[in-house]
Amino acid sequence: MQILITGAAGMIGRKLVAALVARGELRGDPITGLTLVDRDAPVLPDGIPGAALAADLSDPAAAPALAEARPDVIFHLAAVVSGEAEADTAKGYAVNLHGTVALCEAIAAQPDYCPRLVFTSSIAVFGAPLPDVIPDDQPPRPLTSYGTQKRMGELMIDDLSRKGALDGVSLRLPTICIRPGAPNAAASGFYSSILREPLIGQPAVLPVPDTVRHWFASPRAAVGFLLRAAEMETGALGQDRSLNLPGVGASVAEEIAALERVAGAKAAGLIRREPDAAVQAIIDTWPRGFDPARARALGFEAEPDMDTIIRAHVEDELGGRIPVAEQG
Amino acid sequence: MQILITGAAGMIGRKLVAALVARGELRGDPITGLTLVDRDAPVLPDGIPGAALAADLSDPAAAPALAEARPDVIFHLAAVVSGEAEADTAKGYAVNLHGTVALCEAIAAQPDYCPRLVFTSSIAVFGAPLPDVIPDDQPPRPLTSYGTQKRMGELMIDDLSRKGALDGVSLRLPTICIRPGAPNAAASGFYSSILREPLIGQPAVLPVPDTVRHWFASPRAAVGFLLRAAEMETGALGQDRSLNLPGVGASVAEEIAALERVAGAKAAGLIRREPDAAVQAIIDTWPRGFDPARARALGFEAEPDMDTIIRAHVEDELGGRIPVAEQG
Repeated sequence: MQILITGAAGMIGRKLVAALVARGELRGDPITGLTLVDRDAPVLPDGIPGAALAADLSDPAAAPALAEARPDVIFHLAAVVSGEAEADTAKGYAVNLHGTVALCEAIAAQPDYCPRLVFTSSIAVFGAPLPDVIPDDQPPRPLTSYGTQKRMGELMIDDLSRKGALDGVSLRLPTICIRPGAPNAAASGFYSSILREPLIGQPAVLPVPDTVRHWFASPRAAVGFLLRAAEMETGALGQDRSLNLPGVGASVAEEIAALERVAGAKAAGLIRREPDAAVQAIIDTWPRGFDPARARALGFEAEPDMDTIIRAHVEDELGGRIPVAEQG
Repeated sequence: MQILITGAAGMIGRKLVAALVARGELRGDPITGLTLVDRDAPVLPDGIPGAALAADLSDPAAAPALAEARPDVIFHLAAVVSGEAEADTAKGYAVNLHGTVALCEAIAAQPDYCPRLVFTSSIAVFGAPLPDVIPDDQPPRPLTSYGTQKRMGELMIDDLSRKGALDGVSLRLPTICIRPGAPNAAASGFYSSILREPLIGQPAVLPVPDTVRHWFASPRAAVGFLLRAAEMETGALGQDRSLNLPGVGASVAEEIAALERVAGAKAAGLIRREPDAAVQAIIDTWPRGFDPARARALGFEAEPDMDTIIRAHVEDELGGRIPVAEQG
């Protein structure tokens, strides 16, 4: 089992690599090689033979070199996030569209080769007006450059899967929460920071009203989705290889209530309300919740509630400790 | 008024050029320059200053050179047809996806420049299952490479129009009928040939049952759509720049009945039924009819019936004569 991961140095990429190394197998086959790719060469873990490469997928020479090695499973995570794709149109299309198209074309150009391609799409393929609970047959209608680029990738993966050139699964990931580490350029960043910073006793800014609802999954659940997509039977997907995924639907108020249950009132008190019309305008176009019946039937599972999402962060990122609760 | 036309040597391209030359103006402004582009340099008509260029839009250098001249209106017609895009996956993506993406990116890269971009999309963005009459809010779900590539172009044009980088209109052209000249690689070719060949006394092959329904517009109507798209106010389109267009919904039996009314029983007798399962399988996924209320309200008009479509062909291509009716 040879595996290729693009965007392997990103937050999800690093957790996926760790999970694969811990398992040692995929689809019942021992992992014999792991090729990790990112703009800057990722760190190759001990114990599994492989390569860590620095490559820019928007460079036309990059994808063919990767596809020629004919990995059995490809996790295509490399992307520019939503805020950056909106602000820098050319860069967003270069990475999110051309990178995906080049990878698909390089795979299709290899004769007698049909790898599993797991593509991280996004719930940003949906734009307003949207029902409170989005059904599986909701037509995608992106209203951001990021959502547009992800939807274009989904369409190409559907077409090339239909033609047998690859065996694709596009995962419309919920907003990842709690996203560890430093904030990135995603407009959704505050959904994580209003939990992440208070847990360690730091203040956080909330730019939207408490009533705003959204759809979340933990980094741990995201890795589980990627592994499930690599191992599932794709015959059940038919012509539509894109899946809306399970998650936790919660309002900002419900996020804060869960924070208070897990970490106490002091944590919740560290959130400062500073309404931001620009963030609000973006958030207004986003999904509020899903009924992902198709993915659930196919074995995709997320956390049951926001409390569990917060506890997963405490376990995975804070060594089981809650610093704010330990403060005087 | 500077105009750029890609695919200018194609059937619709040549008729569009002739119509622009005959009008001499667009949007009330005199046409001062016409740049015609195709794989092989098109013929530049007399009387209007301009250039005829041979260029391959899938070559990354081609589009920037065209956009630097900053034409006011761009008609982007260049495409590989449906049958060829299905058979030659790499070529279809090279021309239909990369050509369109490169043109959009080249426009977006020009500062303070927002031309009207008229893009010939297709009803092939819709795939089965479909209602008999497709409403304007039917979600696109392509089931061919051609339809996939056209839908990807529509999405990018929606996004860049939203951002003010261009001012796009995507026209989901009905199947053009009667398509003059030699058959091309489009799977829809028989819809034209069962009328075109009998009109001149030649036999034609019908590969599907008489009951099959489809959606048609004449080349004359197609040119009218392109001119209307160049001249309309786009504010009314909102975020969705793609238009389902008026046409004539007809079954093969209704096509043949119209042929008999216009050209006599002898013409209809020249159609030979040779069922072809491969053509049937493609046709089964295609739209049968539309209710294009949005485009009608915006001033897009097609023929009232199939008889008028056939008479338009007799006038435009046969000099008003019907050879089969003149034969003994």
